[in-house]
Amino acid sequence: MIVAMQENATEEQIDAVIEVMEECGVDVHRTTGAMQTILAAVGPTAGLDITKFEVLPGVMHVHRISSPYKLAGRAFRPQGTVIEFPNGASIGGAQVAIIAGPCAIENREQIFAIAKCVNAAGGSFLRGGAFKPRTSPYSFQGLGIDGLKLMREAADAHGLATVSEVMEIAQIEPMLPYVDCFQVGARNMQNFNLLRELGQVRKPVLLKRGIAATIEELLMSSEYILSGGNYQVILCERGIRTYETSTRNTMDIAAIPVLKKLSHLPVVGDPSHGTGRRDMVAPMAKAAVAAGCDALLIEIHPNADKSVSDAAQTLYLEQFEKLVGELQVIAQAVGRTL
Amino acid sequence: MIVAMQENATEEQIDAVIEVMEECGVDVHRTTGAMQTILAAVGPTAGLDITKFEVLPGVMHVHRISSPYKLAGRAFRPQGTVIEFPNGASIGGAQVAIIAGPCAIENREQIFAIAKCVNAAGGSFLRGGAFKPRTSPYSFQGLGIDGLKLMREAADAHGLATVSEVMEIAQIEPMLPYVDCFQVGARNMQNFNLLRELGQVRKPVLLKRGIAATIEELLMSSEYILSGGNYQVILCERGIRTYETSTRNTMDIAAIPVLKKLSHLPVVGDPSHGTGRRDMVAPMAKAAVAAGCDALLIEIHPNADKSVSDAAQTLYLEQFEKLVGELQVIAQAVGRTL
Amino acid sequence: MIVAMQENATEEQIDAVIEVMEECGVDVHRTTGAMQTILAAVGPTAGLDITKFEVLPGVMHVHRISSPYKLAGRAFRPQGTVIEFPNGASIGGAQVAIIAGPCAIENREQIFAIAKCVNAAGGSFLRGGAFKPRTSPYSFQGLGIDGLKLMREAADAHGLATVSEVMEIAQIEPMLPYVDCFQVGARNMQNFNLLRELGQVRKPVLLKRGIAATIEELLMSSEYILSGGNYQVILCERGIRTYETSTRNTMDIAAIPVLKKLSHLPVVGDPSHGTGRRDMVAPMAKAAVAAGCDALLIEIHPNADKSVSDAAQTLYLEQFEKLVGELQVIAQAVGRTL
Amino acid sequence: MIVAMQENATEEQIDAVIEVMEECGVDVHRTTGAMQTILAAVGPTAGLDITKFEVLPGVMHVHRISSPYKLAGRAFRPQGTVIEFPNGASIGGAQVAIIAGPCAIENREQIFAIAKCVNAAGGSFLRGGAFKPRTSPYSFQGLGIDGLKLMREAADAHGLATVSEVMEIAQIEPMLPYVDCFQVGARNMQNFNLLRELGQVRKPVLLKRGIAATIEELLMSSEYILSGGNYQVILCERGIRTYETSTRNTMDIAAIPVLKKLSHLPVVGDPSHGTGRRDMVAPMAKAAVAAGCDALLIEIHPNADKSVSDAAQTLYLEQFEKLVGELQVIAQAVGRTL
Repeated sequence: MIVAMQENATEEQIDAVIEVMEECGVDVHRTTGAMQTILAAVGPTAGLDITKFEVLPGVMHVHRISSPYKLAGRAFRPQGTVIEFPNGASIGGAQVAIIAGPCAIENREQIFAIAKCVNAAGGSFLRGGAFKPRTSPYSFQGLGIDGLKLMREAADAHGLATVSEVMEIAQIEPMLPYVDCFQVGARNMQNFNLLRELGQVRKPVLLKRGIAATIEELLMSSEYILSGGNYQVILCERGIRTYETSTRNTMDIAAIPVLKKLSHLPVVGDPSHGTGRRDMVAPMAKAAVAAGCDALLIEIHPNADKSVSDAAQTLYLEQFEKLVGELQVIAQAVGRTL
Repeated sequence: MIVAMQENATEEQIDAVIEVMEECGVDVHRTTGAMQTILAAVGPTAGLDITKFEVLPGVMHVHRISSPYKLAGRAFRPQGTVIEFPNGASIGGAQVAIIAGPCAIENREQIFAIAKCVNAAGGSFLRGGAFKPRTSPYSFQGLGIDGLKLMREAADAHGLATVSEVMEIAQIEPMLPYVDCFQVGARNMQNFNLLRELGQVRKPVLLKRGIAATIEELLMSSEYILSGGNYQVILCERGIRTYETSTRNTMDIAAIPVLKKLSHLPVVGDPSHGTGRRDMVAPMAKAAVAAGCDALLIEIHPNADKSVSDAAQTLYLEQFEKLVGELQVIAQAVGRTL
Repeated sequence: MIVAMQENATEEQIDAVIEVMEECGVDVHRTTGAMQTILAAVGPTAGLDITKFEVLPGVMHVHRISSPYKLAGRAFRPQGTVIEFPNGASIGGAQVAIIAGPCAIENREQIFAIAKCVNAAGGSFLRGGAFKPRTSPYSFQGLGIDGLKLMREAADAHGLATVSEVMEIAQIEPMLPYVDCFQVGARNMQNFNLLRELGQVRKPVLLKRGIAATIEELLMSSEYILSGGNYQVILCERGIRTYETSTRNTMDIAAIPVLKKLSHLPVVGDPSHGTGRRDMVAPMAKAAVAAGCDALLIEIHPNADKSVSDAAQTLYLEQFEKLVGELQVIAQAVGRTL
Repeated sequence: MIVAMQENATEEQIDAVIEVMEECGVDVHRTTGAMQTILAAVGPTAGLDITKFEVLPGVMHVHRISSPYKLAGRAFRPQGTVIEFPNGASIGGAQVAIIAGPCAIENREQIFAIAKCVNAAGGSFLRGGAFKPRTSPYSFQGLGIDGLKLMREAADAHGLATVSEVMEIAQIEPMLPYVDCFQVGARNMQNFNLLRELGQVRKPVLLKRGIAATIEELLMSSEYILSGGNYQVILCERGIRTYETSTRNTMDIAAIPVLKKLSHLPVVGDPSHGTGRRDMVAPMAKAAVAAGCDALLIEIHPNADKSVSDAAQTLYLEQFEKLVGELQVIAQAVGRTL
């Protein structure tokens, strides 16, 4: 941490800041310039609350100079993390993984048709929602564990691994038999109690970026899981909220290479939520692969227009199959397989 | 719901859209203009997913024309809602309420000193955090129920009502004896399971706007609580995330009069989180009262710089007392008391 | 400027960064910590492009620690700037000034009626647009210099000073006889050629914050004018663009006290553009005064609904008169007059 | 335009709205539902100011249902626009064009080295800045017309077309002999006077999206140029401002397919400004091509770290050559050449 004092800061103010720094257990290096005094904290700065220093009298700016995350940082595992799944698939290696499925599991016929399609297209992961709290209290809320059982059966029948969203701690235990990967939704990215519990689990966690979360905050949230000993975390860019309304969210494609640079964790792109529009899923899926993502998360449904939720962003199975074919060429163009 | 077709939409496309609308159970009124055809849905449109129509072939725009919320709307209770508390205080009436306290309850001495100060300054509500999940897994996490017991004692000793944040469903029951008002934090504004449970409770709920939530989404979230039969909801503006970094959040003061216009629910301003800076709390508290808020939520601490959390935005007790005095004059200037 | 190196930065990388810093003409102080090396630039850092250092190999973060602006900084004139006008009015002193008028000057009758009303209500400034480039090429574009002549006559008849927007350098000269204050619109906040020319003028400039400008960028733009020797700059908060759509812009009320703290320049609030909604002008005008603004800019029109532009945010004259009366009480509550 | 009245709107309010609509010259179709009345404007609605209706008593929402732009819309030229240049190159056809050059033209040696490199890599367009107003008044401001002469010479020597930014109307005439394409910068996207003048020119205009402009606003600005009779407009996505700070701007890759869908105009991606970071230019250039852009705008410099401006986002010539090679494979993967 660096504290830059105002040009007219008094010696009393400078001493007071040094005292607070020292109380926090760090050593202080002082640089007295012609214009300004700078105080550098040296030592265990990870737990320091920098905003606290910003309001001390005479302080101009405070900057954190070390990463607030450690385990998620690229330096912790420079070669990158590859996560293996029971069905033999992996995320983070040379192959770009395809994770696909319906927003909500609706019935046996639907999920089996989808599983068959995912496998036929070359995907290895089936994703479906079982708990669907919705913005409106008047909408469909999901099949729960019964839905997960159906998804497990369909996945096993087609050699797929399963991914489903966990909404609260109490769901972790009952979900365990049915999911190969827990998804944490954007709204729960900073549900730290849930993250801490998932740190105790020994299954992969796909952590979605919050709709207004910075890349640094996403990495801090992954640190919660990692610090519990669960190193199988996958990060997901799924669009952020901006002033632009022509797409539902603004998919921050640059977050993919930025995350790959800052962290060793695999990165997934979600063009379905990232755009909220079926007609934009294909170009954005291609863009995500071109920018270096390790996997794609795509919503599909045999009768997309009648999907009980997220219909607007859901691909028909034929659209999905065509897209996967096109993505294979893009993947090769960036030195990957798919 | 209004569906505006593209200028070159075909009759087949128009018929297909009408069919999907009718399947959703609404009647369709068609206006065929020289340039464009417009389809208006008439009937039970509350559950319609408008985004689903946006991607149908030939559709240009879809607009919702009725409010997605009903119980939260001003029309439901034009005279406004006043919420009464056991200590005789109320929120939503002529008097602007003061809710104050520490970010985290730390110990008996701290919370009693604060309770005394709040009462002396004329405030009626003591707020303190007991469960404190933090952005960093390496920070202080709160005293839990023991903290709530201390707060209850301190509040009772000084005639105050208590407010504390509930983080998950499992905390509701144990918190009940100690809190007069549940606070739902910004990160949980769309934790619909939690909101639904709070709809079953018969105590007031102070619902904070999410950091990237629209005003409409805040009202939709309040609808979750209201639709469970709990009509005692208080809305809170606490700053939204924008590109500006000179304050931690951008406090959307206009949200106060907008919410007062759209809804009958009382509105609280939180200048502490709204700015994240101690030196900005006073001007923004004044602005919130001038703009018509029904209450203020202010973080205070006897030794603000050493507060275990949110130190930067916490007022010293003397600063708080001075501010309340100044606010009384502003309240009078807008026809309120304080 | 502080350059924080990555933990694993090599000596070669550190030396290379030091070399580039020295080529920029600054001295370098090196602090070698257990984890990280920190390089502090000492000397003439105002012209340094910090982004250039961010991409050098081995660099983790770069922070500017001195203000990029000097003349606009509060330290340059701690007592604050008061700007005097020929009609005896001033902006920046104890009195909160009222600047009001139509979005566009339309005809003699309109502007005289407005001038009379402004004076009667106690305002001292008449503002009207003469050049009105519009988002759509199919809309009304303003009366030009003829409009300014009308405004000048109306202002003189009622003892008012005039404010009007200058859109390009070529307009400065012809506008000079008619305006007491040049307004620079939000879209021109970073039209540096125009700002530089206005630095040569010896009349006050009211500089509006760009719709996506940071507070620091606004101050940097004011520095362009100040550095030309024109110290009569007034800053204006008029709303920024965020994801929220219930108001046209999000008025950043906190920008008012932040600017007052960082700079000695007077600050104006514009609740008309800040909200874009007539029904929100009054509460936001009150909030701006409560938060410490030095003046308000309000759009008014005798027949607001038929104003040729910005009708939605324009007050009727009666609404304006009523508002000014209410504002006087708020001004007193914060120790000002109006 | 559709006006949705509030549920409790009175007949007087409805009649008043109809009257204002009719005064604007449109016919009104009224739909009286059980809950709500809806008024649809039929006729010449292009010039209507919808915000004006939003504040009329009894109005709930107003929606525009026809595009505010006509000439820029895809329907105007469904097959798409291809723009031809004197050197035989084109933008908008099957080949993805490469436009590259320095942020600022610095000297003969620099611009000739760059022109040679662009040509060798297979690019057809040389872009360089001659007028460089900067955020800080203390920085380098460009070589002006002398710089353009150098660029013209260098371009002619290597068979390239030239692109340079025009900052104000007075520069158009003197620039004409030297540029094959005028660039309008993000800050001037709504400088309507400049756009109108460029509508009179018969050379292509590359129009950059403003840092806070919506896609609709970008199209409206292009309409200004098109409506003057200049149909050679190229749209450019170059990053928008959001809360995320790990890249300088957030490059809205989805804007590329959205613009291609809404408009017939060619679309350029600018990964240099879009990210502000040299290490992110390559992945984002690939993403832009994968998403369907018609050209790329890339900043390059033989000694990038010592570029007088935008050093952080500028590629070295070797990096550029390598990138173009990689882009060729991506272009093929999406059915284009490069």
